[in-house]
This record gives sequence, structure tokens and C-alpha cells, in this order.
Amino acid sequence: MAFKKITLTDHRAGSLDENTHRILTDGARTCRRWAVTMTTLAGSGHPAGSLSSMELYLATYAFANVTPDNTSSFDRDYVVISHGHTSPGAYAALAWLGFFRPEEAVAHFRQAGSPFQGHVERELPGIDWGTGNLGQGLSAGVGFALAQKARGVDGKVFVLMGDGEQVKGQLAESRRIAVKEGLTSLTALVDLNGIQISGTTESVMAADIESLWKADGWDVISCDGHDFQALFDALVAAAERPVPTVILARTVMGRGVSYMEGIADYHGKAPSGELFLKAMEELGGNGQWLEELRERRKTSLPEGRHLGSYPIYLEAGDARTYGNDKKTDNRSAFGTALADVAEHNCGVAGRTPLLVFDCDLAGSVKVDGFADRCPQAFIETGIQEHATATVAGAASTAGVVSLWADFGVFGLAEAYNQQRLNDINGANVKLVLTHVGLDVGEDGKTHQCIDYIGLLRNTFGWKLVVPADPNQTDRATRWALSNWGNICLAMGRSKLPVVTDEEGRPFFGAEYRFRYGAVDMIRTGSDVTLLACGHLVHRALAARDLLAEKGLSARVCHVATPLHIDDGDLLKAASTGAVVTVEDHNVNSGLGSIVAQRLLLLGKPLAFRSLGVTRYGDSGPSEEVFASMGLRGTDIARAVQDLLR
Amino acid sequence: MAFKKITLTDHRAGSLDENTHRILTDGARTCRRWAVTMTTLAGSGHPAGSLSSMELYLATYAFANVTPDNTSSFDRDYVVISHGHTSPGAYAALAWLGFFRPEEAVAHFRQAGSPFQGHVERELPGIDWGTGNLGQGLSAGVGFALAQKARGVDGKVFVLMGDGEQVKGQLAESRRIAVKEGLTSLTALVDLNGIQISGTTESVMAADIESLWKADGWDVISCDGHDFQALFDALVAAAERPVPTVILARTVMGRGVSYMEGIADYHGKAPSGELFLKAMEELGGNGQWLEELRERRKTSLPEGRHLGSYPIYLEAGDARTYGNDKKTDNRSAFGTALADVAEHNCGVAGRTPLLVFDCDLAGSVKVDGFADRCPQAFIETGIQEHATATVAGAASTAGVVSLWADFGVFGLAEAYNQQRLNDINGANVKLVLTHVGLDVGEDGKTHQCIDYIGLLRNTFGWKLVVPADPNQTDRATRWALSNWGNICLAMGRSKLPVVTDEEGRPFFGAEYRFRYGAVDMIRTGSDVTLLACGHLVHRALAARDLLAEKGLSARVCHVATPLHIDDGDLLKAASTGAVVTVEDHNVNSGLGSIVAQRLLLLGKPLAFRSLGVTRYGDSGPSEEVFASMGLRGTDIARAVQDLLR
Repeated sequence: MAFKKITLTDHRAGSLDENTHRILTDGARTCRRWAVTMTTLAGSGHPAGSLSSMELYLATYAFANVTPDNTSSFDRDYVVISHGHTSPGAYAALAWLGFFRPEEAVAHFRQAGSPFQGHVERELPGIDWGTGNLGQGLSAGVGFALAQKARGVDGKVFVLMGDGEQVKGQLAESRRIAVKEGLTSLTALVDLNGIQISGTTESVMAADIESLWKADGWDVISCDGHDFQALFDALVAAAERPVPTVILARTVMGRGVSYMEGIADYHGKAPSGELFLKAMEELGGNGQWLEELRERRKTSLPEGRHLGSYPIYLEAGDARTYGNDKKTDNRSAFGTALADVAEHNCGVAGRTPLLVFDCDLAGSVKVDGFADRCPQAFIETGIQEHATATVAGAASTAGVVSLWADFGVFGLAEAYNQQRLNDINGANVKLVLTHVGLDVGEDGKTHQCIDYIGLLRNTFGWKLVVPADPNQTDRATRWALSNWGNICLAMGRSKLPVVTDEEGRPFFGAEYRFRYGAVDMIRTGSDVTLLACGHLVHRALAARDLLAEKGLSARVCHVATPLHIDDGDLLKAASTGAVVTVEDHNVNSGLGSIVAQRLLLLGKPLAFRSLGVTRYGDSGPSEEVFASMGLRGTDIARAVQDLLR
Repeated sequence: MAFKKITLTDHRAGSLDENTHRILTDGARTCRRWAVTMTTLAGSGHPAGSLSSMELYLATYAFANVTPDNTSSFDRDYVVISHGHTSPGAYAALAWLGFFRPEEAVAHFRQAGSPFQGHVERELPGIDWGTGNLGQGLSAGVGFALAQKARGVDGKVFVLMGDGEQVKGQLAESRRIAVKEGLTSLTALVDLNGIQISGTTESVMAADIESLWKADGWDVISCDGHDFQALFDALVAAAERPVPTVILARTVMGRGVSYMEGIADYHGKAPSGELFLKAMEELGGNGQWLEELRERRKTSLPEGRHLGSYPIYLEAGDARTYGNDKKTDNRSAFGTALADVAEHNCGVAGRTPLLVFDCDLAGSVKVDGFADRCPQAFIETGIQEHATATVAGAASTAGVVSLWADFGVFGLAEAYNQQRLNDINGANVKLVLTHVGLDVGEDGKTHQCIDYIGLLRNTFGWKLVVPADPNQTDRATRWALSNWGNICLAMGRSKLPVVTDEEGRPFFGAEYRFRYGAVDMIRTGSDVTLLACGHLVHRALAARDLLAEKGLSARVCHVATPLHIDDGDLLKAASTGAVVTVEDHNVNSGLGSIVAQRLLLLGKPLAFRSLGVTRYGDSGPSEEVFASMGLRGTDIARAVQDLLR
């Protein structure tokens, strides 16, 4: 049994020598035994697709410059497994190639706390993207290839896929981005076993797979997916073609185990008892290992990799302070800060490349200034949000910083699941949502992103900043670009005045330092606290003036980071004993609900009301839309009076 | 000026007579003036695409059997406008055809409270689907065509689209569903003006549009999109082809206004001042109307249609009661109830057709029993969730009930925006999410739907039911199928015991009637209230037993409808003065946060703690995964003791 990787990079031109072919063929049988055994031991998993993909796994990982020693580096090839449920096959192949010990994978498959999860995850070396939600792997591959290109790395990217997922729309989006960006380093491999859960691919949802790839400008190579010689020939040919290439590999579902071959039933079912033994026998082994492994399963779990951060070398530049002589929209303040960062870093040696993605809205979301200064790092992906989200996410784990700016509805509501998976994958995306809230105005309810807090609150890793004015936007933008992690900035459409302190100086001015989690105390007050998010701080300030006329003293605080509010800051803000939250967001899922839950958990009883969006809003000028939603300064003042009555 | 609809249905074979051609050509100029004027008056909007689509709008609405008199009926043709931002063009064409008065549309465009919104919405007669999020219109068209087929209506469906959105993946998914389902009644029309916001379609994201449609099995007709004769010829030809057909209509962006023609800048910008007058002059009119309209804009708003419900005729059958002799998973109880409903209604005259959608998971999500009994109403759409969500949504507004069952992650997280748009469109989808929560077990974190409450909480219309056991699942399924609206049922994967009352009889048994909003009081108690959601009621019951050993009396209540909890029920449940919420959901965005916000708003101070999912979970058997998350009965009991200490 050979545990060491067989590097075939040098074998491009020639045919496999007899010895290598024999080692690989034997290896495939060994791997098949491991893959089946792990599903039997776990009592679940996906054996049949693992068996059909086995030669694809072995050939790809053998061909790719991905080794147990280089997986922590960016300067290597990348392999994405899009059909993540065939994890037993991937784990077996990786174990055989020495990425980890086979007995660990087999014994601890699908066990709570083990990195050998049901679907492949990045915690394992050799796995570059956690998948399982189908149709998304090619987007990740595109992201890796873009990152390599931005870093000037001469690497290749391989994406293995199932055939059932070929009909998923996101996949086609990724194909087009690959061709547009000239990602010739990208090779896709499709396991054409012809069977998905509910039956044949032909019967479930027929698709002319070859024509679809060709229509998007890819080269297509067809081959026998169980023939190592054919696979290596295809991999070599694909690497040399002038356009991205897909290898359509004909395979047999369940290959190697007679009762699984061509049977949809074993898509997601593990064999047990006699059937397990029969499988082992047919695969040239026996089942004796099983009991030993069963005992090993009770021992301590292997550890996975920690998906940590890495240093980002970007010069954020000096903050700009906008005066209160004219209004500026937060979008423009963001765009200007981003252009500053381009100015300081674009083309400068030693800096972390920054890729900026746009879905046909550059002028509106203000990334055009960046595009002018750094055109080679500006990626226009068209109206293809699902792919863009994953492309940006994957690239950001491979040595670049990704920034994607889009309308809130498109960047988050439409691509929510992709952003969730970016979080699970420990990515480093800067997601800039513009036109959020009712402030999108005339575009109306289909475009009102009134759920950005509520959506990201479902994740555990995303940070969110909702700046109050152009000055805070400027600082938050520079902060986000120089700090690790998935960070979302959300801002409306309208031009805003600068928030000032009691003396009329910019509140978020020269002295201000952005601190994630802080509550900004804009105005003191003793009767009630108006806790506002984003641009609604201006309406809260208007309400404060109206309340003063009634003899009420309102404290105005701004929460820029609704997902993570510093407890000490919150309690200090709430010390008036009456809190009214104000937000341009669904009142049920935003700041109001977060503050309520936190205050109750902190055992802080007080008078409480939450104001925000209570129905889908109208289409009209922002001011009209806010008025009809009851979110003018007068409405806020009235709610405070009601609460204090 | 002709306001009455020119029915061209009879003109299939022949050419347009001279008079009709002249009326239409004059009409197009008139409509262009109206479209431009409404953007000028509103100071925003999308004139150039409206002008390129104008003949497409007029020809389609003239050709389609959609009249001011029949829009409330299902027995007619449907027209979907996918590029919803070209609303000025659509409103002008509809006004010219008598659907409403042109001065109302022109005066009240993009005004808060007006039905003439920035993007087309169903509140206007003639608009069958509210859009604006691009790439989704064809899915709606597929839904309407499926509904017509299910109802036995000999109608046609037309979908107008832009060219920028042709690269959106969901569109390709819809193409395939159309071909698979043999929807020959479907005609798509693409406005090929070659320009999108950021420049030419070729430069933003090139696509071989014709090849893409052909690869998915559609017939393609190309024609001049400003030539009525060519358009009618194409519409007639498309209607007669044996497969779904797309008309690729070459147009000129901004057609008819010299300074807009072929200019990307006027995608989303209204002309004003001299430019407006120049446009009017070139379009054979003058700008005098503007002032009159400006005055009219100050008058009372026109009213839109109310998106109400309509009666559903489905026999829900008798509830089944599962005994406590064996465990059953909620999925199976749902599937059995659904099969019962099929048994009672499938093929029965006078019943509302029920369409059941599946994305390659029929056996897992238990819709296979329905498929066996009612194969003609079972729509297998493959791994294409975005399209499926919209298809199901649109169909459900056109005289059928749509049910889509899928894993939670795919049916909601992946298709969140589509479900949001279904809500905005007032649809009637029954969304059954299985395998939600950590209970998905071995599939691991990418498959853990721990956000279904948090996601739907962002919407205003969706209802959500999370049943506690097979009996409640049975009743909730029958309730959902016989009641109007977007209703989601969420359930885990595992087999569950039956919840019993204190005497050991099924709690949700013969006497039980499902009431939306109710809190189910499972066990009395006086020291603390355990408020559990879904299957965690079983763990709460286990905790109760452990607490009893410590001398603590725990009340156990179940919240099946976390989005809408009856205030009276909640206060009654919480009367112990200490509440611990327990859920198989992200603890930040689910039951705990809803209850906290509500209790604080109700001014109910009490001791509070929320238990749930606090990080992405592990991959392993459910019980192991819950244990590692701290959600066993012992963990719950310990948390209660901490709280009461």
C-alpha cells in the first residue's frame, strides 16, 4: 500500500507507466473498501457516488500540486469537491495520498466533533471549500483561480462535480465568469454516473450537459471516468487548452460493488451485515477491519484544522472628514474611501491583493472610482449574484481580500445561502450593501432590503456595520478592509447630513476611532433613550428637538453594530430606564428585537418600544415612504410620549 | 387615440391590416410620450428600457387574451414582465389598452401609496407578477403555465424579459422545467437592446443567448422588436411550435428619443427641462401636459387591487392519531396526511388542483406517497431550487395550491429571496421544510437549517408551524392545505415519540384542534416555564422530570407558531415568572428572541434565559450533535437551576 503521493505533474506528455497504473488501480480498490467501510461504520453516508468518483478523486489529487505539505500555502493548486456528499470517496483518496491516516477517516466518519464530516469541510487538509449544497463548487473554483491570478501564482484549479447538480443555475453563472476572466487554469470534472437520488438524471431533469458547457464557451473533453490513462490524458489536455475546460467523465454509480452498480438506492444508504461483507469481498478485501475500527471510533477524535485568519497587508489611508456644509450619501463616502485604498495599494508590491466585484451596478454602489484606479482588480460579473457571492468568498480564503458591493436585496437577500456558506467556510468577504431599507425609495418593496440585520443575525461569524453618516462610513470602510473576517457594511441611498456633537463639530471626526460593538452616545438626556441604527439617528435627533419642546429630555444613541452590542455600552445607554429603538428595518427582526433579548437576558427591566418597518413599504421619494410608514421625527416623538405617559 | 383593446387573436394567419398597423404605430408613439413623461414627473425611473420594449409590450398585451375585464379570472392568458424596472413602458401600454386611465399612471408614478410603483406589482390589473429582482420572471411564467395545465385551461403565457438578465442562473433552471413539463403554451420575449446599466451586454457579461435557449430545448425566433408585423408573426409562430419558444427581439435602447438611443446612461435616469421637451417633440407631442399632471399628482391617489385570497376547495380528510406505541418521524406523518389529501381530491371534479413540487428528494421529504397517488400533479424539478420556489409561488396565485417540500436549507435558506417575493406577491405556497435544525444530524453544518424562524420573521405574510410530534404534524398539514396563504411547516429528521397528556393519552389526539397562534400547555408547573419549539418539547419534558427530582416544578409549553404567538397564551404560559426558551434553532434569531421582544413590549419583567444553537453544529448522529451543543434534558435542567438560583 502506497501512502505517498504519486506526483504526475511530470507525466504530462507520456502514458502512465505500468507500475504507476498498477499502484493506482490497486489504490482505487483499497479506497473503495475504505469508503464503503466508513459508511457502514457510521450507518449512513453516500457510498455509491463515492465509488463512481473514485478514479476522478485519485487522478485529480495525484495530478494536482496539492500535497500534505503545501495545503497551508496559497502558492499551489486548488481542488474543490462540489458534490460534497461523496465525502467517503474524497476522504479515502486523500488518506491514500497521505493527507491523513485512513483509519482515522474510516473510524471517525460522521461522528460529532470529528473533521470527517458528512459533507466535506475545510477543516480537513486537501479540502479547499466546504460544500454539500450542490451547484456551488464551480463558483469556489472560479474564486480560487481569480485569487491565483491576482497573486501572480501559476497554479491550477480543479473542480469535481456530480451530474445531478449540472442543472443548478449558479453553475452556469460561474461558467460565464470563468470564460470572461480567461481562467484557463480552471479544469472542471463531471462524474457522469447518470443517477441522482430520485432516479436517472435523464428522468429527474434532463439536460444537454455538453451543449450547456459549450454554449458558455468551455471546451469539452469526454472520457471514461474509471480509466486512469484516459483521465490523465484528459487532465493534461485540459491544462493545455486556451479556454476553461470540462472533462465529462462517464462512470458507473456504485462502481465495484455489484449490488450498488447503477442503483439509485445506494445514493445515500450504507450497506450493513452480509451486504457489507459481500462488498468487501468484491473489492478484494474482507470485513475483519470493521470491529477494530468500531473500537477505535470510541477513542478520542482526530482534530481538524482551525480556519484561522492570516495577515492582511493593506494600507487603509487617512480618514477623510466630511464637514456639515453639505450632504453626502454614505455610498459615496464608501466609494471615496475605497478609491483611496486603491490609490495606496493597487500595484504596490507586498500588499494583499484586493478584488472588487460588481453585478452591473458599479455607478450606483460607487465602486466605479476603484475600477478607474485599479481596473485589473475590478471584476464585473453581471447580473449573477449567487455565483458572485461564492466566487468572492472562496477568493478571500486564498490570499486576497474580496469586496462585493451591491444593493442589499441582491447582495444578501438573494445570495443569503451563499453568504451563510461563506461564513461556514471562514471567508474574508467585505460585503457592502447599498440602498438598504425604505431609503431605497422609489424602487419599492421588491428592492427594500429591510432584513439585513435579521438575515446576518442567523449566522455566527458575520459582522455588520450600519454607519450613521459619511464620516462613520469612511472609518468603517477602512476598518473593514484592514481587518479579517466576513464584514458587512449596510447603507441607504439618500444624502445625509453629518452627525455633529453638541458643539456642532462632526461627531465621527478627527478624534473618533471606530470600535466594533460600541454604542455612540450622540446626545445626552435623562428621560428616555432613543437607540437608533444607521441614518435613523437623524430622525431620532429631530424627535429629540420636538420632545425638548414638550419638556422631555431624550438621550440619542447610535448602534452601528446591531449584531454585537457591547453589554456595558448598552446598559449605560439604557440607564434612563426607557428605551425606544428606531431602525430602517423590519421591526420584528432587527435592532429592536436584539436589544430586547439582550436587555431581558441582562435582567434589565425597563419601558420599551421598538419602531421600524411594520409592512412592505411604498414606492416613492424616501421622505414620503418614511412618512407613510410612521417614521418621521414627529412619529418618533409621539411614540416616546406614549411610552412615558 | 384608441383606448380600447385591439384583439388580434383572430389575426393569427394573416398580416396586419393597414389601419391596425397605423393605430398601433401611433399608439407606440403616444405610449412613449407617456412613459417618458412619467419618469420626468417622478424625477426618476427607467425610460430607455421602457422605450426599447414598447412595441413588445403593445404587441404582447394586444395578442394575449388579457383584458381589463378578465384579469380577475384564471381562465385567460397571463403576461409576466420580468424586467420590472421598465414599468413606465408597461404602464403606458396597459393604459393605452384601457386597463386604467393614462393620466393616473403618468401623474402618480413612483408616489408613495400609488399602485404605479417603480417596479411592476400585482396591485395593477394586467400585471400578473411583481418583479424587479431580475431573472425571475420566466419562473413565474412556468408557474402560470403549470397552473393552466392543472386546471385544464387552454391559455397562453407570455414572459417579457431584458437581455441583461439572460445570464441569471434561475432563468436557465426555468427553461428546463418548461421543456420537461411540455409547456408549449409558454412564449418568452427578450428585449435585445444590447445595453445594461454598466455598458453593453457584451462587455458586462457576454453570453451566447441563442445557444443557451437552444441548449435547453427551446425554439428560437429572431425578429425586429420595433416592427409590429414581425412581432405578431413571431407570436403566431411561437404559439404553434411544439416546444416552448423564445422570441429574440432586436431593439434600440431609448428608441424614439434621439439623445437616449443606444445610451446606457438613460437606463435609470429621467430627462428634465429642455431634454424633456425635446423628447416630447421628437415623439410627436409637446410638454404642455406636464403642468396639468403635476397638479394631478397632488390629488388623491388611485387605488390598486387588493391581493386577496380566493376559496380553496380541498377535502382535508380525517385526522390520523398516532399512538404512543411507536415512534414516527414528523416527515412521515406529513407525507401520510398529504397522501390522504391526494386520495380525497386527486382527479375529483370541482376541487382546487394541488401541485406538489420536489427537488430530487421525494423519498426523504416524503412526497413519494403523493406522487404515487397523483402522478400528474407531481412536478419533479431537479436540483433547481430558485426556479422551483418562484414556479410554485406563481402557480399558487393562478387557481391551484402549490406545495413544495425540501430540506430546510434548500427550500428556504437557498431560496430565501424567492420566498420573500412570493410573500410580496400574495402567493399561496405550502412550504414544507424537513431535516431542519441540528436534527439533520450527520449531514452537518452546511445542511443544518437553524434559521427558518429567523428567515421567515423578516417577512410580513409568511406563517410558520413547527409541530411537536406526528399528531400535530398531521393536523397542521391538513390545516395548511385547506387555508389560504404562504404557510411553512418545519420539521426535523428523527423519529419522535408521541406527546402525551398527563394521563398518557396523545396530547394532539382526537380532541385537539389546531389553532394558529396557540401555546400548547403540555404540563402544568409553578416554578418555571419551559417554552419549547418543535421536537425540543421532548427534551423539555425530560428536563422537567430531572427538575422534579430536585423539587422544582416546571411547566412545559409548546410553541408551534413562533412567528405569531397569541399574547394571552404567552402571558398565561409565562405566569410562573421565569421563562426558559428551548429551540433547535439559532438562539439569537428564533423563539428566544421573539418571546423576549414580546415580553418586554408587554411590560412583563421576569427571569429569562434562551437555549438553542450557539454555533454551527457538528456532523454526527442527532443525539451526539445535541449533546455537544448542550441541548440534552440534563443541560436544560441545569440552565433552569442556574436561572432560579
